[in-house]
Amino acid sequence: MNDLPARVHIHEEGPREGFQIEPGPIATARKVELIDALARTGLDHIQVVSFVNPKRVPGMADADEVVAALTPVEGVQYSALWLNQQGLLRALAHPGLTLEGKLTLYASPAFLMKNQNRTPDEQLAAQPELLRMYLHYGVPVRSGFVTAAFGCNFEGDIPPARVVELITRQREIAREQDVVLDHFGLADTMGWANPQLVRRVVGAVRDAHPDISLSLHLHDTRGLGLANALAGLEMGVDRFDTAVAGLGGCPFAALKGAAGNICTEDFVLLCEEMGIDTGVDLDALIECARLAEDIVGHPLPGKVKAGGSLSAMRRRIG
Amino acid sequence: MNDLPARVHIHEEGPREGFQIEPGPIATARKVELIDALARTGLDHIQVVSFVNPKRVPGMADADEVVAALTPVEGVQYSALWLNQQGLLRALAHPGLTLEGKLTLYASPAFLMKNQNRTPDEQLAAQPELLRMYLHYGVPVRSGFVTAAFGCNFEGDIPPARVVELITRQREIAREQDVVLDHFGLADTMGWANPQLVRRVVGAVRDAHPDISLSLHLHDTRGLGLANALAGLEMGVDRFDTAVAGLGGCPFAALKGAAGNICTEDFVLLCEEMGIDTGVDLDALIECARLAEDIVGHPLPGKVKAGGSLSAMRRRIG
Repeated sequence: MNDLPARVHIHEEGPREGFQIEPGPIATARKVELIDALARTGLDHIQVVSFVNPKRVPGMADADEVVAALTPVEGVQYSALWLNQQGLLRALAHPGLTLEGKLTLYASPAFLMKNQNRTPDEQLAAQPELLRMYLHYGVPVRSGFVTAAFGCNFEGDIPPARVVELITRQREIAREQDVVLDHFGLADTMGWANPQLVRRVVGAVRDAHPDISLSLHLHDTRGLGLANALAGLEMGVDRFDTAVAGLGGCPFAALKGAAGNICTEDFVLLCEEMGIDTGVDLDALIECARLAEDIVGHPLPGKVKAGGSLSAMRRRIG
Repeated sequence: MNDLPARVHIHEEGPREGFQIEPGPIATARKVELIDALARTGLDHIQVVSFVNPKRVPGMADADEVVAALTPVEGVQYSALWLNQQGLLRALAHPGLTLEGKLTLYASPAFLMKNQNRTPDEQLAAQPELLRMYLHYGVPVRSGFVTAAFGCNFEGDIPPARVVELITRQREIAREQDVVLDHFGLADTMGWANPQLVRRVVGAVRDAHPDISLSLHLHDTRGLGLANALAGLEMGVDRFDTAVAGLGGCPFAALKGAAGNICTEDFVLLCEEMGIDTGVDLDALIECARLAEDIVGHPLPGKVKAGGSLSAMRRRIG
């Protein structure tokens, strides 16, 4: 039950999550300023933009300009999101980006139908072609991702067995093209998880697939984000997606004002205080969180940026 | 390690914490409106006011009027805070209040000196007289309370052994006047706790004093409030102080804008989703949180009030 990792790996998604959802407009230079500052904190993986239709996501209209203007820091991987071939082609044009083809499945049939107008069977049937596209462009594929793995506003509770089954099917499909999926992300897309459920789902996936590593993508929609992260850490999960200052919010209209991803600096404090190495300079990260707040021009949900780090307090007291 | 209680008892402190710290002014009728609404949610213990110097705490100048205007709900205990005999006498004038004399000790010498201009020895020496005062006025005493039990901005880390020692001394002092202290509250006054430390301190106190019950008063200064509460729950702690919507904030100037007590409705969701009974109607409580936000006129930190309860979502999906 308590198997804390010695080191966690953080996938920072604040810039992409945040600038996608903020009403804006936010100047390209300020987006670049935040990403460059984040890259100097010790974070080694930053998702910087999404290549999507600028008419639907105006905040990402300058995605190409943002990527081109970054000052790369050695050891930092810059990644991007895309939803189709057109987006992937735009990403491929940037040699500074580290591309990975993640195969995403929805665990919620109702959400899948609403978002993609597909049934679960149609979703699985579409995977081989996606995989072929990645292989065609030489984009490495090793990861799957399960959306709404802990519950869904449109479907309700999601049985852990369904998550396991999706991962099993996804791996079989990949294997047919000689691709090994040895990593899966589990997303609590709408904030349905609780610590017990995190343990149950992670445990069920591990039992069926002991050879894969897991990451957690937790939303703080209902305030349980860090408690759920704690449950994940205690199950030995060592990869987490987070957003500096809690940038991003919740994209679902019915949950207006709800929080988005768990906040990077709060998560780093949690790890740091329990002796888990993150590789991140928390005080530098707190400065980034304050910068993010300044850039968006309104309060962001992260707490440590107001409370300050305990390591800084200890140094001050001497 | 995992000893979840079947039922938790919540001590709601939002009205007292909130109206004390809000810049205001807030109309007496609106304070009463919130407290009366809270009393109809199933919460059975609400701290409604503090009887303190109105020159120092203008938000509590109407404390007597607030208490007098409440519509008592059967089964609900209404409590108050005071700092000295003068405050206690004001509280005693209200037969509708349930008074309890809590004996508070500071675990942080630096904070004790700063706040009360006393050394640890002087603090202990002052206890017998306090106790005599409560006995004189017929106010029951059964609880102690340890402030800054997990760390302090002025002192730094607090050794768990010091918390244990304070409780031991406090109980000895009480016993000399034939008073049994069988309950202690542990306060993370400045947000220094982490889940491991909660387990360590609760465990150390339990080992030394297996016959007392514990409550946790956790501040969310650095975002770890609910993760710390989870650790407490898993140690079997079944009493928590919380504040609706996260009313209250942090009273320390150096932490401007930092969060206060853990948020009642987020904590209730955590419990509810893990099968722990709180006796509270979460959806009614969420309405109170929205009311609190309306009353103070600015966003409050609780998350569920935007995200909505999962039980309501499940009912809607059917």
